[in-house]
Amino acid sequence: MPRPVIALLSDFGTHDHYVGVMRGVMLDICPDAALADITHEIQPQDVLGGALELGAAFKYFPAATVLLAVVDPGVGSARRGIAAEAGGRFFVAPDNGLLTAVFKDAPPARVVELKEPRYALPDVSRTFEGRDRFAPAAAWLARGVDLAALGPELPSWQLLAIPEPVATDDRIVGEVLRVDRFGNLVTNIDRQTFDRLAHGSATEVRAPGHSATQIVANYSEADTGSLCALFGSTEHLEIAVSGGNAAERLRLGRGAQITVMRRHQD
Amino acid sequence: MPRPVIALLSDFGTHDHYVGVMRGVMLDICPDAALADITHEIQPQDVLGGALELGAAFKYFPAATVLLAVVDPGVGSARRGIAAEAGGRFFVAPDNGLLTAVFKDAPPARVVELKEPRYALPDVSRTFEGRDRFAPAAAWLARGVDLAALGPELPSWQLLAIPEPVATDDRIVGEVLRVDRFGNLVTNIDRQTFDRLAHGSATEVRAPGHSATQIVANYSEADTGSLCALFGSTEHLEIAVSGGNAAERLRLGRGAQITVMRRHQD
Amino acid sequence: MPRPVIALLSDFGTHDHYVGVMRGVMLDICPDAALADITHEIQPQDVLGGALELGAAFKYFPAATVLLAVVDPGVGSARRGIAAEAGGRFFVAPDNGLLTAVFKDAPPARVVELKEPRYALPDVSRTFEGRDRFAPAAAWLARGVDLAALGPELPSWQLLAIPEPVATDDRIVGEVLRVDRFGNLVTNIDRQTFDRLAHGSATEVRAPGHSATQIVANYSEADTGSLCALFGSTEHLEIAVSGGNAAERLRLGRGAQITVMRRHQD
Repeated sequence: MPRPVIALLSDFGTHDHYVGVMRGVMLDICPDAALADITHEIQPQDVLGGALELGAAFKYFPAATVLLAVVDPGVGSARRGIAAEAGGRFFVAPDNGLLTAVFKDAPPARVVELKEPRYALPDVSRTFEGRDRFAPAAAWLARGVDLAALGPELPSWQLLAIPEPVATDDRIVGEVLRVDRFGNLVTNIDRQTFDRLAHGSATEVRAPGHSATQIVANYSEADTGSLCALFGSTEHLEIAVSGGNAAERLRLGRGAQITVMRRHQD
Repeated sequence: MPRPVIALLSDFGTHDHYVGVMRGVMLDICPDAALADITHEIQPQDVLGGALELGAAFKYFPAATVLLAVVDPGVGSARRGIAAEAGGRFFVAPDNGLLTAVFKDAPPARVVELKEPRYALPDVSRTFEGRDRFAPAAAWLARGVDLAALGPELPSWQLLAIPEPVATDDRIVGEVLRVDRFGNLVTNIDRQTFDRLAHGSATEVRAPGHSATQIVANYSEADTGSLCALFGSTEHLEIAVSGGNAAERLRLGRGAQITVMRRHQD
Repeated sequence: MPRPVIALLSDFGTHDHYVGVMRGVMLDICPDAALADITHEIQPQDVLGGALELGAAFKYFPAATVLLAVVDPGVGSARRGIAAEAGGRFFVAPDNGLLTAVFKDAPPARVVELKEPRYALPDVSRTFEGRDRFAPAAAWLARGVDLAALGPELPSWQLLAIPEPVATDDRIVGEVLRVDRFGNLVTNIDRQTFDRLAHGSATEVRAPGHSATQIVANYSEADTGSLCALFGSTEHLEIAVSGGNAAERLRLGRGAQITVMRRHQD
């Protein structure tokens, strides 16, 4: 068996010991695991934000990687914990929609409820199931325990509504879903949807109060400091400032409406 | 021998190369070690803050884990470096009280002074003993070197005063020790002390200018946006806002006085 | 063969999934690798800043470590990707000067252009070559692929101008190159240059609006709260406040001029 990999995503930040103790718990159960952080800087309790980052990341991890995701405003309540197999990887998370974007890309083969106490810590607290329930389940999966051993199969699970772009004959209306460290405003408009509108036509990308007519292939193709639009690393349209920060310049963030217009040829 | 684990805690942050070079030094000495961060975001030179996070985290790491802790305002001075065995794990730190909370929970079996030059880098700088002395000592321990080989056993070591709650017949007066990423105000009032006061009585938790009468089992049990009190993942009383940030709402932080009152039954 | 080590430095930050997917890509190619972060908090697109941190860090990693560095404002453009062998380690980076400080310390034995598609992901995007080209190349090197297999040897590469101090008979004029988490202002004045001026003479260190006459061996040797100068962990002169933050106190940052004067003996 190759070395097991556990990838971690959470909203725990890096200031507290929370992620550290999850690492300790997992290494105790599966000492050979390679632990790889995706991010712990999801905004506190932002389940949709976590779902989108996880959806963008999971397919770059090796087959059989266990992806442990914890953004969990309902910790300690009746909401369930789940484990799933999807796209050749395993997932452990609260059942609150955090796996929505993963499941959209890779419909799950099996989803089980985390019920088996043998694969949790002896005392499960009401405030930190990441440590007491999810991390142990992930580590046991990494160690080779079968998904079915963690609990009964579920017929359904929570899903979130991910905002979708609306396309008409002359425009696509989408919105900003993510703002990255570089200030790039990443929208929900994927390349396929865009291509259907654009095929051969000039287009214009409008953000509130701003317009970019340059659609470029990479950041440095635009003039330094100028507003541009391009398809980023997840193949979604984004608004960027070459060598600068679009979110700061435009004072826009998540949820901002972005419209792609078919432009009249002069 | 199972794979050695080294857990890291410091105030070095993650912007500089400081933690990176400690990782390099340790992997050079003990290439098989699993390196696991607890946090590097302890406030600069906040030894008590570091001690509390380390005390909350260490027991979740596997037996024989080496915990390397560096919050070291006295770097390069005459303060000693120490290594210790406590609670089935090993610890390497400056002798400035950083292990106080660990030793309170798990009295040390042995404490030695880091004296043996063979287990430090050839040149020990006066400004970065984390790299030159502590990281090598931790890696040698992880590799199986005996604690006693690092230097002479010490009869005593530095301890910090950790603020303790004061309990009387009708109240417990404690204080906020930690503020976490979610804005939860974690106090020094543990569940046992609380239970002695509360047994069967209604209680009220008072923070300066505020009062919470809801003591809940988990965050989502309180109404969204309402102030509540609960026992968090380290079994200490904390003030929280369900779905919000108590530290921001109450404008309170470490050191704020928190009082638990026995409440007259109406 | 000992366990391969891959050290990572970038300006990707830790909020997005970018570094996470690079980890996934590398573990897929080289599952046994130990991944060790140097930092991902280089200021966005600050190639010189990245070069300086990498130059300070690389020599602490084990022989044969692969150091993957991505600060890449020209991503997707015609700028080349390179891999190099220098100082007994391997490096993978965009050819934009990011390896300047490494090469100054350790002239490269070989530099190749990343050309061989077999050692990149099947689709190389125009906006994230860190994931699609650099991470795979680093992982293949870690797995034992020869540098020469990655592409043709290059006769020259990009270098940045690193500001050098100017020394005269009575003074050295340098500047601040790095500000660390503790607010220490780290200059480009190395100990050798300083010693040539100082040999036996008293000196004074001047920053705009401030002067430090105390040159100390470590931070705690100066009075708490007082301004001092010392040689830090990379053997460069730095301005510090004992127990405080010099950058905040002096309101100075990178580029600030620092002058060392030979002082008249009274």
